[in-house]
Amino acid sequence: MTTTDSTARADQPRHRVRRLRLHSQHQAIVVMRADCHVCRAEGFASRSQVLVANGRRQVQATLFQIEGESMLALDEIGLSETAWDLLGVAEGDEVRVSHPPAMDSLADVRRRIYGNRLDTTAFSEIVRDVVAGRYTDVHLAAFLTASAALPLDEEETVSLTRAMVNVGDRLRWDAAIVVDKHCIGGLPGNRTTPIVVAIVAANGLVMPKTSSRAITSPAGTADMMETLAPVDLDIATLRRVVEAEGGCIAWGGAVHLSPADDIFVRVERELDIDTEGQLIASVLSKKIAAGSTHVVIDIPVGATAKVRGKDVADRLAERMTAVAARFNLAARCLQTDGSQPVGRGIGPALEAFDVLSVLHNKSDAPDDLRQRAVTLAGAALEIGGKASQGSGAALALSTLAGGAAWKKFEAICEAQGGLRTPPQARHVYPLVAPRAGRIVHIDNRKLARLAKLAGAPGAKAAGVFMEVRLGDDVDRGQPLFHVHAETPGELAYALDYAARAGDIMIVGS
Amino acid sequence: MTTTDSTARADQPRHRVRRLRLHSQHQAIVVMRADCHVCRAEGFASRSQVLVANGRRQVQATLFQIEGESMLALDEIGLSETAWDLLGVAEGDEVRVSHPPAMDSLADVRRRIYGNRLDTTAFSEIVRDVVAGRYTDVHLAAFLTASAALPLDEEETVSLTRAMVNVGDRLRWDAAIVVDKHCIGGLPGNRTTPIVVAIVAANGLVMPKTSSRAITSPAGTADMMETLAPVDLDIATLRRVVEAEGGCIAWGGAVHLSPADDIFVRVERELDIDTEGQLIASVLSKKIAAGSTHVVIDIPVGATAKVRGKDVADRLAERMTAVAARFNLAARCLQTDGSQPVGRGIGPALEAFDVLSVLHNKSDAPDDLRQRAVTLAGAALEIGGKASQGSGAALALSTLAGGAAWKKFEAICEAQGGLRTPPQARHVYPLVAPRAGRIVHIDNRKLARLAKLAGAPGAKAAGVFMEVRLGDDVDRGQPLFHVHAETPGELAYALDYAARAGDIMIVGS
Repeated sequence: MTTTDSTARADQPRHRVRRLRLHSQHQAIVVMRADCHVCRAEGFASRSQVLVANGRRQVQATLFQIEGESMLALDEIGLSETAWDLLGVAEGDEVRVSHPPAMDSLADVRRRIYGNRLDTTAFSEIVRDVVAGRYTDVHLAAFLTASAALPLDEEETVSLTRAMVNVGDRLRWDAAIVVDKHCIGGLPGNRTTPIVVAIVAANGLVMPKTSSRAITSPAGTADMMETLAPVDLDIATLRRVVEAEGGCIAWGGAVHLSPADDIFVRVERELDIDTEGQLIASVLSKKIAAGSTHVVIDIPVGATAKVRGKDVADRLAERMTAVAARFNLAARCLQTDGSQPVGRGIGPALEAFDVLSVLHNKSDAPDDLRQRAVTLAGAALEIGGKASQGSGAALALSTLAGGAAWKKFEAICEAQGGLRTPPQARHVYPLVAPRAGRIVHIDNRKLARLAKLAGAPGAKAAGVFMEVRLGDDVDRGQPLFHVHAETPGELAYALDYAARAGDIMIVGS
Repeated sequence: MTTTDSTARADQPRHRVRRLRLHSQHQAIVVMRADCHVCRAEGFASRSQVLVANGRRQVQATLFQIEGESMLALDEIGLSETAWDLLGVAEGDEVRVSHPPAMDSLADVRRRIYGNRLDTTAFSEIVRDVVAGRYTDVHLAAFLTASAALPLDEEETVSLTRAMVNVGDRLRWDAAIVVDKHCIGGLPGNRTTPIVVAIVAANGLVMPKTSSRAITSPAGTADMMETLAPVDLDIATLRRVVEAEGGCIAWGGAVHLSPADDIFVRVERELDIDTEGQLIASVLSKKIAAGSTHVVIDIPVGATAKVRGKDVADRLAERMTAVAARFNLAARCLQTDGSQPVGRGIGPALEAFDVLSVLHNKSDAPDDLRQRAVTLAGAALEIGGKASQGSGAALALSTLAGGAAWKKFEAICEAQGGLRTPPQARHVYPLVAPRAGRIVHIDNRKLARLAKLAGAPGAKAAGVFMEVRLGDDVDRGQPLFHVHAETPGELAYALDYAARAGDIMIVGS
């Protein structure tokens, strides 16, 4: 936001800002009267890009125009939350609105569309403009589409990764080895992170893990972890926790690692495209910015997972490892089973109970979650030099079985602000098998939607608790899963969906 | 808008509509409280796509969420003008908001991104969803970028053209020959259309011409023509004018010919990309939908024109002619000089005076405008069978010189609702040569901006009137051009821009 404001002038008419409390994700939006002097004189139309400046800061925003006096006076400009925050204004402050300067990096996007490869400088300038909020959805989609139509090669992937690292915060740690983990494409209930961090840190390695909140799923790792301890840590607290305990499980929102990634991911989700180059830059830029030296990458492979076949997973792992090496980051990719959900809970608190039962070595703890966590922690212990090749999983299992992992987890939670007991839902309702038979199909997408309709992740205790897995035999009337909700209204809403959604599970004969 | 509403239910909570008078171009936008029951239960976030239904009609819209009660009550939903018009609601009407159905055509867009060519069915479904307002900017940009990265081949261009024709209105005429003209890329002041229509119709051919209003320029043909006669004709009136006089010069907004085109053009402009396939489909779909059988296409070629070289113009002309032939449309492409503006006026009324002076055979009429009009009209008379090959221009010139063109133009204006005298600006100010010398450079972009700042096209009399052309010799203090404005404020605003914009014209020594 340091561009020189070349077009605004001292004698130009001013507007008074008005906070609309309008949420628009990363896009800065402003609303002005179509009949105001500046709109008329500058020839602004709805959806014009405009530059709003208050003398100290400036922001590029998308303009929407209104008619009539009901929302704004002629000299008022309404600001979305993003615009409001970026400008740092107070109600009634004066701003000037003008044409934004030309954006040179779009010429590189156009060159890329027409089949030319880009160099490091071009990627840097594109990513800088993206993070400055100067790219509209149209520009973002064009850049990402061009990178899919002609896939990024290895050099371009390195350039994009570097550009994404450079525009955000960077963490640095004193330790020579800093371990991280990442899972490509969320499987419902796949909450290995807290268990892996506990095992790895209990063995003396440094693992400062930051995770995301749910965007479209019923729970992100940060949402789940928040039911067990505070996760909204500022950088100083996060550093203190890691120095004391060797690990943390925090929300990544307080540190701005690779801020371009969130913007790209939103657009990729809207397009429903995944490209290898973008995926690698997305994963590695966050790890590099977080100061990691070693990373274990979980690649679930399955028909309904993000990665659908072994050939794709092999190629992804190879390119991922090669690009990581260019940044002195040692990556190990593990292909895991992506054919069905992990554990029993779907929703923040219900997933936390799964994690606790594994850490507590409960006899009824979900074995698939335990196995996955042990495999990933084992790989981390091996690349981190705490176990020889092939012996990591055994060390991880003994760390878990002996109670050291739980002790470390407890200490991390205390350091983050205190261990909490996850809430339990007040309204629990079973959905039962319509007939006896074997479970032959589970629709993960419908289960996730059901958990969200029941209130997850906003309502921490809400979600779905699985009573069966693929291949189980059930009797007629036996519960298939329970819906958990915090209010009767949300329970009713979820059950209504369950009644009309078609088969969520299929009981074969 | 006839999709079955599969997810809304009779018992679902309703919202009362509120008209925001918010302009958002083609994008339907709705605003809801983030804390309303539907947003929470359905898991809607800001920028979610939602389906708004009122029992009779439904519209897919982009949701923005607000906090607090200042704008909306908990059960109110604010509608942009596009959403309001598409739903056809009245203040306080009840609607239901739900998830939109899956959009299958996006799978084709993704296939196209990954290098697969699309068939007629795929293009039809994409264009149908685009016109139904179901494509976000992200989807639109991805489709257009994919069509640029791997250019449309001839079959795809035919398929896209057909799809664009089929989703809009279509005009049919009794005449066997229906003539049209089109100019690729507007040169400032290039107002040949009214002159060409007058000459062609005076020779007995049918030429029902619809034109656009300015979007980013100081005047569109419809803006200019409106200073001479009403142009906002409904289809019945348009048909009556053409039946009586053989031609019209109307605004195209009342007939929805190729509505997808306006949407694609907006996004292409934002990306600043022009692709041959899209350009051909854009031009031809409107001509085919208008019921034309013969079309003359003006391709200005010049360093600052849309088409920059003869090789590109040759290839474009060849493909354009071939695709047109597939729809039984005979196209003739003419390459013309695109190196400087045409005529003397820039702005609706000032351009109208140029047109009138040519039609009146005034001695000081701009010769470049006359020559271009005669060339294009000559080509139209030749392809329309009214003149033999090579003799069209002579016939056109004699139609003009003998007064028949003016007589026809006058009759068309009367039929459209009455000939008007264009307004004259009350505030006219010269900008003069800083020294003696020869005009070596004219910045068309700055002249267009200046005309807009002076009030064009909203203020009909406003704009710029050129007193010199490239190559002219001027004395110190001699006017280079006059700025015309309707108010002192707009004049001051334009002159202020002129003072700080740098060289608008360069006087060489």
